[in-house]
Amino acid sequence: MTKIILNGANGAMGKVVTELIAADSDMDIVAGVDLNTDVDLGFPIFDDIKKIDIEADAIIDFASVKAVDNLLDFIEEKKIPAVICTTGLSEAQIERINKLSESTAILRSANMSLGINLLSKVLADIAPTLKAAGFDIEIVEAHHRRKLDAPSGTAILLADAVNENMSEKLSYIYDRSDRHEPRRNDEIGMSSVRGGTIVGDHDVIFAGEDEVITLSHRAYSRKIFANGAISAAKFLQGKTAGLYDMSDVI
Amino acid sequence: MTKIILNGANGAMGKVVTELIAADSDMDIVAGVDLNTDVDLGFPIFDDIKKIDIEADAIIDFASVKAVDNLLDFIEEKKIPAVICTTGLSEAQIERINKLSESTAILRSANMSLGINLLSKVLADIAPTLKAAGFDIEIVEAHHRRKLDAPSGTAILLADAVNENMSEKLSYIYDRSDRHEPRRNDEIGMSSVRGGTIVGDHDVIFAGEDEVITLSHRAYSRKIFANGAISAAKFLQGKTAGLYDMSDVI
Amino acid sequence: MTKIILNGANGAMGKVVTELIAADSDMDIVAGVDLNTDVDLGFPIFDDIKKIDIEADAIIDFASVKAVDNLLDFIEEKKIPAVICTTGLSEAQIERINKLSESTAILRSANMSLGINLLSKVLADIAPTLKAAGFDIEIVEAHHRRKLDAPSGTAILLADAVNENMSEKLSYIYDRSDRHEPRRNDEIGMSSVRGGTIVGDHDVIFAGEDEVITLSHRAYSRKIFANGAISAAKFLQGKTAGLYDMSDVI
Amino acid sequence: MTKIILNGANGAMGKVVTELIAADSDMDIVAGVDLNTDVDLGFPIFDDIKKIDIEADAIIDFASVKAVDNLLDFIEEKKIPAVICTTGLSEAQIERINKLSESTAILRSANMSLGINLLSKVLADIAPTLKAAGFDIEIVEAHHRRKLDAPSGTAILLADAVNENMSEKLSYIYDRSDRHEPRRNDEIGMSSVRGGTIVGDHDVIFAGEDEVITLSHRAYSRKIFANGAISAAKFLQGKTAGLYDMSDVI
Repeated sequence: MTKIILNGANGAMGKVVTELIAADSDMDIVAGVDLNTDVDLGFPIFDDIKKIDIEADAIIDFASVKAVDNLLDFIEEKKIPAVICTTGLSEAQIERINKLSESTAILRSANMSLGINLLSKVLADIAPTLKAAGFDIEIVEAHHRRKLDAPSGTAILLADAVNENMSEKLSYIYDRSDRHEPRRNDEIGMSSVRGGTIVGDHDVIFAGEDEVITLSHRAYSRKIFANGAISAAKFLQGKTAGLYDMSDVI
Repeated sequence: MTKIILNGANGAMGKVVTELIAADSDMDIVAGVDLNTDVDLGFPIFDDIKKIDIEADAIIDFASVKAVDNLLDFIEEKKIPAVICTTGLSEAQIERINKLSESTAILRSANMSLGINLLSKVLADIAPTLKAAGFDIEIVEAHHRRKLDAPSGTAILLADAVNENMSEKLSYIYDRSDRHEPRRNDEIGMSSVRGGTIVGDHDVIFAGEDEVITLSHRAYSRKIFANGAISAAKFLQGKTAGLYDMSDVI
Repeated sequence: MTKIILNGANGAMGKVVTELIAADSDMDIVAGVDLNTDVDLGFPIFDDIKKIDIEADAIIDFASVKAVDNLLDFIEEKKIPAVICTTGLSEAQIERINKLSESTAILRSANMSLGINLLSKVLADIAPTLKAAGFDIEIVEAHHRRKLDAPSGTAILLADAVNENMSEKLSYIYDRSDRHEPRRNDEIGMSSVRGGTIVGDHDVIFAGEDEVITLSHRAYSRKIFANGAISAAKFLQGKTAGLYDMSDVI
Repeated sequence: MTKIILNGANGAMGKVVTELIAADSDMDIVAGVDLNTDVDLGFPIFDDIKKIDIEADAIIDFASVKAVDNLLDFIEEKKIPAVICTTGLSEAQIERINKLSESTAILRSANMSLGINLLSKVLADIAPTLKAAGFDIEIVEAHHRRKLDAPSGTAILLADAVNENMSEKLSYIYDRSDRHEPRRNDEIGMSSVRGGTIVGDHDVIFAGEDEVITLSHRAYSRKIFANGAISAAKFLQGKTAGLYDMSDVI
């Protein structure tokens, strides 16, 4: 039985993780962290992760940027393997995670789904060949109307994968309405659609001479991200200290 | 036999029109206009439309903004019905066309394809119902890497159709990367993909609560625009003076 | 407060309806029907709708074909307005519903979503024009791996809408692998994709000369069908006897 | 200067190859083969390839199944490297090609485009991982109304690539309308859309739990197949005897 501390227990993602672990006979949540401790989620809730003194095998984190500092203090002290899914971290936080991973197994990813992580491997593989053959690369993503940032962290993750093995890195461009010129060779155009309750669509488009290849991923529910985090927490069991990402889990 | 004057005879669209009329037993090009008169297209070429003194039943125009002034002078003098397909006209040119249409039958459209014009009728019909039901409206278009403007004139034509019967008009937004806030209710997001040789794709997306409707149009060659112009020239035969558009032809 | 009897209370759709009505201050479930009465759904459960003797304003039905006979007996006796969403009904059951609608307000539809019903109106409008212009019409639908029938009832609803105003009706074809000939003019090809947990995608494709128009609908959760049924139940309040469908509700 | 014999010189693909080679300063067509020899294509035309006694560096073949026997006789005698693009060959013809490749460099592929061949490599790589993770695999292809066979040779090429590294091969199914049961685990559903002038669209769909990955390829003109054949003919120059395919060229 893998014992989990859930950081961000009462958020949208926290609730999905709770539901999935409840149905998992190999895993149990022993404590949760949330600013609001006045809810009954079936396990003890703390308003600060540092107040927890319960033995655990892994931390799953889907909290806010602000809650991550306490999380990192806690990892530093307890050396519990951690799956960090909060996005939008500061440079300082990312650096500290890298440092902590020298003594603890930590996995961090901007997108926890199997599909996106598999696609990003494929993109790193094929993008240089297609670019050399004259294909232009563009990314279109679509998310729900409440999403605050654009483009999505996942779109950037995919663009970074496109660039990974490219000898000359492509730059990212978000708006062409103020230009009046042909497309440049050295760029990836990134477009963001917002509307309704779209969970997350991503299309990576390779447009060549009279042919277009599109690699697309469509999420139908947040469960896929929660499932990825749960698989990652299981993966970290028994692993040596180090910084992992979802491509290690696949 | 409908006798045609072709304005912009040696441009990309002019060549397609020429090819299609050559195969049409009911239509004939009697004269062409192009800055470069040193080509053999099978009909006499003039560098200025005003030099033409040949009887004609209609003008088809796929030229440049600059060539339109001479075209309008010629229509004013000759009163020959005209299909004007050049885009990016100035306010003054558009006003003059409106004035000329009081004495001559003129058809003007930003997109000559049957499909786009039919879709824009549908959009004007359904957009208010879907907006009232809480759907958000977004447009994504894709064109070849050499296209200079973004979004495309056709994307704007479609957005205008969405707005046509809307009691409160939606505004158009081209970039969300500099915001950090939820989607606004009163806008249409417009995204432009550029790459390869894509002739012209347009998706109009209605994103609601857990359902998405998409109306999309894909052009595979420029022939559809040339065919639309030829149908329009036939349509204008025998019509009374006035300003027509492709929805009249359908 | 609209009082509802829910037929098929413990099925996949019944649970979604229950959840949505629980959050609706204008509506209440006063009784449910399910073979399994040993569940606590917050309202009394009966294994046969005919055993219910509780006053109600409408019935919402998402049950099985077998349970519909009892439902129709009940409607005949009680004359309670009913929203019938069970698909795959026999000819005899459909005939009986038509007969019952002479004395009771009944709404029946193969798909309860706003989007699909709006699309089917659009299809009936535009299909004859596009067919006359030489466009071929095809439908592709995708559903989860557990779906038993193919093509989906909704795909057939959409094909029927295409045919609605067509002077010569198109026939439906489900397989071309055993032919070796060009496409016929008088048919709609219907393709069924099955996999994963896809809730329901439908693409209606109009393929013409060098242009393709696609009208597509994507469902992200079953909530849209439950919401449609709830709107329909409200719509039926105060309506005269008759047979209604979702296009009346929109 | 690479000297080419073009088998099937006056067919749809032959004409595109002729046009592209005319614009290529490194390549020249020295003879063509076509049943109809009464056309002026700018090079001598023969009604039987075996009548040709002109030195050549490579043969490009886009002919009919019937014309392939003469082609193979010719290759056997002359040992000229050949790019064979005709599809629908008999088992006997394929066997003979394999035999001939022991003494001559031959390249054969069901699809000559860079995009399709790259996708098939990717599919062979990722399909086992996705299948193991519970994803179902389906293929949808769309072609013009005149296409005789379904599914397309390219769809089968892609399905074969999916199976390439799969420990238990999946079988192909073309119709589910006569079943009434859940999707089987051991199959790839293949759907064929036919309409208009669609050059060739292929979607390979991986449908998992709440996420769908789609790899799609869209051809906008036959030029991509002609370009692939030309690249293949250049690739074969100086190669040792053997059977090659487009993945060697990429």
